[in-house]
Amino acid sequence: MIDRILVQELGDHVGHEVRLAGWVHRIRELGAVSFVLLRDRSGLGQLVYEGAVDLASESVVVVRGRVEANEKAPGGYELHVAETEVLAPAAAELPVAVNQDPDTVGLEALLDHRILSLRMPKVRSIFSVQSTIVAAFADYLRQNDFTEIKSSKLIGSGTEGGTGLFTVDYFGERVYLAQSPQFYKQAMVASGMERVFEIGAAYRAEKHDTPRHLNEYVSLDVEMGFISGHDDLMDLETELLTHIFAAVAEHNTTDLEGFGASVPTPAQMHDIPRIDHDVAKDLISSRGGKKVFEINPEGERELCRWAQETAGVEAVFVSGFPRKKRPFYTYPDGLKTRSFDLLFRGLEITTGGQRIHEYAMLRETLPRFGLSEAGLGDYCSIFKYGCPPHGGFAIGLERLTQQILGLANVKEASLFPRDRKRVRP
Amino acid sequence: MIDRILVQELGDHVGHEVRLAGWVHRIRELGAVSFVLLRDRSGLGQLVYEGAVDLASESVVVVRGRVEANEKAPGGYELHVAETEVLAPAAAELPVAVNQDPDTVGLEALLDHRILSLRMPKVRSIFSVQSTIVAAFADYLRQNDFTEIKSSKLIGSGTEGGTGLFTVDYFGERVYLAQSPQFYKQAMVASGMERVFEIGAAYRAEKHDTPRHLNEYVSLDVEMGFISGHDDLMDLETELLTHIFAAVAEHNTTDLEGFGASVPTPAQMHDIPRIDHDVAKDLISSRGGKKVFEINPEGERELCRWAQETAGVEAVFVSGFPRKKRPFYTYPDGLKTRSFDLLFRGLEITTGGQRIHEYAMLRETLPRFGLSEAGLGDYCSIFKYGCPPHGGFAIGLERLTQQILGLANVKEASLFPRDRKRVRP
Repeated sequence: MIDRILVQELGDHVGHEVRLAGWVHRIRELGAVSFVLLRDRSGLGQLVYEGAVDLASESVVVVRGRVEANEKAPGGYELHVAETEVLAPAAAELPVAVNQDPDTVGLEALLDHRILSLRMPKVRSIFSVQSTIVAAFADYLRQNDFTEIKSSKLIGSGTEGGTGLFTVDYFGERVYLAQSPQFYKQAMVASGMERVFEIGAAYRAEKHDTPRHLNEYVSLDVEMGFISGHDDLMDLETELLTHIFAAVAEHNTTDLEGFGASVPTPAQMHDIPRIDHDVAKDLISSRGGKKVFEINPEGERELCRWAQETAGVEAVFVSGFPRKKRPFYTYPDGLKTRSFDLLFRGLEITTGGQRIHEYAMLRETLPRFGLSEAGLGDYCSIFKYGCPPHGGFAIGLERLTQQILGLANVKEASLFPRDRKRVRP
Repeated sequence: MIDRILVQELGDHVGHEVRLAGWVHRIRELGAVSFVLLRDRSGLGQLVYEGAVDLASESVVVVRGRVEANEKAPGGYELHVAETEVLAPAAAELPVAVNQDPDTVGLEALLDHRILSLRMPKVRSIFSVQSTIVAAFADYLRQNDFTEIKSSKLIGSGTEGGTGLFTVDYFGERVYLAQSPQFYKQAMVASGMERVFEIGAAYRAEKHDTPRHLNEYVSLDVEMGFISGHDDLMDLETELLTHIFAAVAEHNTTDLEGFGASVPTPAQMHDIPRIDHDVAKDLISSRGGKKVFEINPEGERELCRWAQETAGVEAVFVSGFPRKKRPFYTYPDGLKTRSFDLLFRGLEITTGGQRIHEYAMLRETLPRFGLSEAGLGDYCSIFKYGCPPHGGFAIGLERLTQQILGLANVKEASLFPRDRKRVRP
């Protein structure tokens, strides 16, 4: 391996000779001297050359030189280069410049030239935050005795009723890409694991193209047994998100700064209001001066403004959704259900709830949704053989990332997003 | 939430009244007294009832009673039950008994009745070990500055050349399920992240049905920039697996005992031999008394026996595979390549190697494999715009689990395995 230090570590080596390696981010020639910004995984560092330099942007180089302090250099240090080795030259012409602000490039161009746009430091920040979210999600749940599972994404039938599924040719048989691991996480709670989580892909064959939808996304799924109701789940999600936000604040300070973003504090998280679905509609109606009959995206934003004004946190749990608005497996509560959404900064980032665990109740429920035991494959056997009261929720990883950083479109939070028109790169 | 303790914690409450909750694992009626084994996420605990009990196996109950020490009880303690609440009764007849040894049930029956077989403590042990592997894999890599990525599993073309791909109907367009995140992890190294890992599903539409193949599996993928050769990758994998094995030894002591299994020690891991592909073939030939021309499954087992005899560890890195046996992107070394397999206890659990990072070399290589730049979509642009020397490897999660526990068939290490004939449950 090439013996080198990271640009972040320059300050530890002032007056000494070191090696750096990375990408040529920007070149500025001032006649007698040239400055090159070098990009490595830790950030950007300044290289100083005598005279002109013959390097193409994005070429990969290893340089040797002496470290000097310079308060005008990024980070306060720079490397005076004695030797440069080009490990891989880049083509002279780049279809999009990497060293520009991605906000000045349109979304379509960023996605069309994804191989290059992912090199932009601000774009990479998005995925550094995302990596932290995934780690903190798993850490918190493991600390609380949850087991990580990996379930199949190829399913014989849809648990949600069959709409919005992508079909796969499986050795001549027609199967589907799973919309969620719902069936499997319930089976694993009932297996005696009791507490499980999964980080996996989820697929929705829906044709809409909005700033909040992806056809393939990463679902952070949680399911827990022996709950007394859906308040237990909202408690768990509050603690979990508090842990995730703390991790992002700790590990991604610079990334957050780049977006002018911050995460809610533990005190704010503690104050997230929980309101009934009917109360939520009334709030939207009264604040908007116009009666609403369901909570649409503008209603979600209005509710978060209300939460900010009254509770000091831009998040709200809405619970008690009507039965007909929730999947068949949702635990009923009269005409309502023990279910909830979490709205965060104007967007639904979670759907959750208690599930039906009694076999008799499930059998009684299925016909109301036009479903049959046989049509659901093995699903009902989870409950036939003893399943505790349980429930769970799912957080969309890309949406959570989007809302933390204030991204205009959820596609920005997917490395290689898939939408109606895009299956590349 | 129901206030309760776990059976594992009984010893902390001797003489006190507590609640337990779980599944009725086994009932033994002795006339004046009955013993019920209760299963919860922590293990099995003994309940004592006066007289007979009216409970069906696998029913979910909450019981209240007094804890007493009893050296004959599992764990040394038991609960004398005062009150029992049935949260969910199980059907009287179970298609397979949960309280039997899974080894006495055939694999097909275990998979046909997966919802129940996953309740068997010995089956659950497999997935407790698997959860530890996933956590330790991510922990080690994060500690070493790797970023976790999530790439798309829906691809427009196959990086390996198009064979063995499942097709998906994507809004009328024909796309494929990814065989590996190869393209994406290379793109992310080249983005400047330098070090990335991914834990995700991989798909192989291959018709073989062997104890070592799955059509859908979890791939633990690693890719790293600025390497000097494939020895760096074998070093990394050795350290990574040493960390994983230590975590399994620490967290899954009981699970390992149940299988009579153990993991290699750090000292053994340190001694894993690295041999050339030609040397490996010669070893198999000379030990078997018959010249071999490639390393088949029996050859892999023979090499591991050789490693055990000569180095005291049942693992061996085989490197320098011929160019024609490796994918086009493998870094050439004359007629050979800078690539390797890791064989562990007789089975290949990893394929890895250095990749071609020079655009010119890649362009020169493609025609030899019958490939074209255009046919590979965006792949070549990774290298056109500056990519450091890099490489990586992938570990099959189910195979690693299988080899740690000594499972006869890799399907046992998949919660819901998919094979030629099976897409349920």
